[in-house]
Amino acid sequence: MVALSPSCRIRRTPFSRAVEAAGAKAYTVYNRMLLPTVFDSIEADYHHLKKHVQVWDVSCERQVELRGSDAGRLMQMLTPRDLRGMLPGQCCYAPIVDETGGMLNDPVAVKLSRDRWWISIADSDLMLWVKGIANGYRLDVLVSEPAVAPLAVQGPKSEDMMVRLFGDRVRSIRFFRFDWFQFHGRDLAIARSGYSKQGGFEIYVDGADIAMPLWDALFAVGEDLNVRAGCPNLIERIEGGLLSYGNDMTNENTPYECGLGRFCNTDTAIECIGRDALLRGAGQGPVQQIRPITIDGAAVGAHDRPWPVFAGGKRVGQVTSAAWSPDFRTNVAIGMIRSSHWDTGTRVEVHTPDGARAATVHNNFWL
Amino acid sequence: MVALSPSCRIRRTPFSRAVEAAGAKAYTVYNRMLLPTVFDSIEADYHHLKKHVQVWDVSCERQVELRGSDAGRLMQMLTPRDLRGMLPGQCCYAPIVDETGGMLNDPVAVKLSRDRWWISIADSDLMLWVKGIANGYRLDVLVSEPAVAPLAVQGPKSEDMMVRLFGDRVRSIRFFRFDWFQFHGRDLAIARSGYSKQGGFEIYVDGADIAMPLWDALFAVGEDLNVRAGCPNLIERIEGGLLSYGNDMTNENTPYECGLGRFCNTDTAIECIGRDALLRGAGQGPVQQIRPITIDGAAVGAHDRPWPVFAGGKRVGQVTSAAWSPDFRTNVAIGMIRSSHWDTGTRVEVHTPDGARAATVHNNFWL
Repeated sequence: MVALSPSCRIRRTPFSRAVEAAGAKAYTVYNRMLLPTVFDSIEADYHHLKKHVQVWDVSCERQVELRGSDAGRLMQMLTPRDLRGMLPGQCCYAPIVDETGGMLNDPVAVKLSRDRWWISIADSDLMLWVKGIANGYRLDVLVSEPAVAPLAVQGPKSEDMMVRLFGDRVRSIRFFRFDWFQFHGRDLAIARSGYSKQGGFEIYVDGADIAMPLWDALFAVGEDLNVRAGCPNLIERIEGGLLSYGNDMTNENTPYECGLGRFCNTDTAIECIGRDALLRGAGQGPVQQIRPITIDGAAVGAHDRPWPVFAGGKRVGQVTSAAWSPDFRTNVAIGMIRSSHWDTGTRVEVHTPDGARAATVHNNFWL
Repeated sequence: MVALSPSCRIRRTPFSRAVEAAGAKAYTVYNRMLLPTVFDSIEADYHHLKKHVQVWDVSCERQVELRGSDAGRLMQMLTPRDLRGMLPGQCCYAPIVDETGGMLNDPVAVKLSRDRWWISIADSDLMLWVKGIANGYRLDVLVSEPAVAPLAVQGPKSEDMMVRLFGDRVRSIRFFRFDWFQFHGRDLAIARSGYSKQGGFEIYVDGADIAMPLWDALFAVGEDLNVRAGCPNLIERIEGGLLSYGNDMTNENTPYECGLGRFCNTDTAIECIGRDALLRGAGQGPVQQIRPITIDGAAVGAHDRPWPVFAGGKRVGQVTSAAWSPDFRTNVAIGMIRSSHWDTGTRVEVHTPDGARAATVHNNFWL
């Protein structure tokens, strides 16, 4: 790991003081904002996340707000997923594609009301694309980045902890739905969602002034549940097959290559900008696709990736995320693999900086 | 300083190995790419930059390439600067604004030929805006990010060093012009430009395969000139008034607020998207503007900014960049100051995390 120089350009969050006090040991930069990556150790954080409950500062999941009579139309122009049946109070994972079908982001779209949406983005300045499209098509919509800082509560005990602070109604929030709750007189959207497979919620904290009071309140009610500060965990997200935009997929990839074909309703009459470009992929299938991969041998290092993947002396893909899984006793990885070698059980060779390792391609993630 | 976790999402550059070998002590993340921030110490790097010659890995200055019959039209839609007289072989600093006149980036536009431009960007995914506009207006243009990694050669001895590698023709490159030079059989654009006031060049390295050979060749010819690896220097750039997008200005600011009014030709018949929104600012002037500021007392720390600026108990601005200047024996800073307090000599108070400091607003930068 290297040192990161402080700069206004790399934004702090309304929770940064709490994250520092909780002992964050390293960060990444995500949407030009600090995102902690480890508190105790990645392995210790992983075990704790799977047993208890963690509070994550995911302020870097910026919101792109669409407001106006064309908000819904614009949202549909951005994604090949058919949103026509979506109701206010629903969230949905919505790959965003450009006119060539290349992925620009893989956000969660939050429908606040008929004319108001939040796009809860992964790591790219998606707002610039959205504003460009809104301007070019002369849509009646305001596009902005509101001062909303999401705070995630993740882990098996998250529901119990949230109920203590927000009441029993939390239990009735269904997966990828949200409802409104009061905190310090403010209305907060709380969704059952998050970047782990351990269950949990995301609180869309609207207003920096209530950020620290909310953080403190969660830690106060959760003390006997062993609540800790946490962050998206590399091992757990690989096990669960949670992709990371910029790591596992980029603008070079289509949703089909990312295994997100089920979110592409290209056969319906939706007005998505990338629809035409995606039709061929929809028919023929991609030439490469995201796959879970196990890498033989001892724990792989945290070296800079990607690592090329070979078979029979030919390059057949690359590994973009990898970590030792304590629970599965193997190195778990995510890679983009050519169709010739993506069948489950295919043996390949991963070229890590420490040398070549035998590896196996799978079709299902571990969780 | 905090630790930065490795990730594919934060891209290495074709020069990263050389930068590491040269002993980079810290980095920032710029356009989702590593940019070193210090080698020896910021002060030692500063003295060396002003006396000798440095080679900077500024691969993070990504290029947005516009290619096609509408490339020139699109370039003009992006910026309020009148580009009609610009010839191939010229570079020009071109603020990019959205439909409200807000700054989206402050790149250098490079006109390669009539139908081909590079926009050499500061820290924002400008390509997404450019692609959105190209799509929305149905322009005949291809927008892409080519694998071009700029390498800067900066410092008073840079011309002498460049001549040794590329020949005497280097001397005839005028400021903000470029010409084509051969290296290992490849044509490279070399411009007289760079993010320092010490003179120098930027080499647009087209192709990762020649990156390390070029780095090594520069160090070989420059050994007796005391060439070192370097990077944009915080102190030197503040002294010289080189603004940093994301630090000193954001999407919230117009070019007038950034003191870039001389690059806004809103009174001409250019087809710039933000022109109408800028007309009022052009007539009335901004309510706040970038100013050089000296901060009294001992050297300020590298604390997270911005620092609020007060006068008479009222907030009148903020400091976004600050450092101790060894040459000027004072803390030099850049801030955004309200019109009521921007006259040269105005005394204000800067609230740093270590307490309030008396400070003076100026009208001219130090270099």
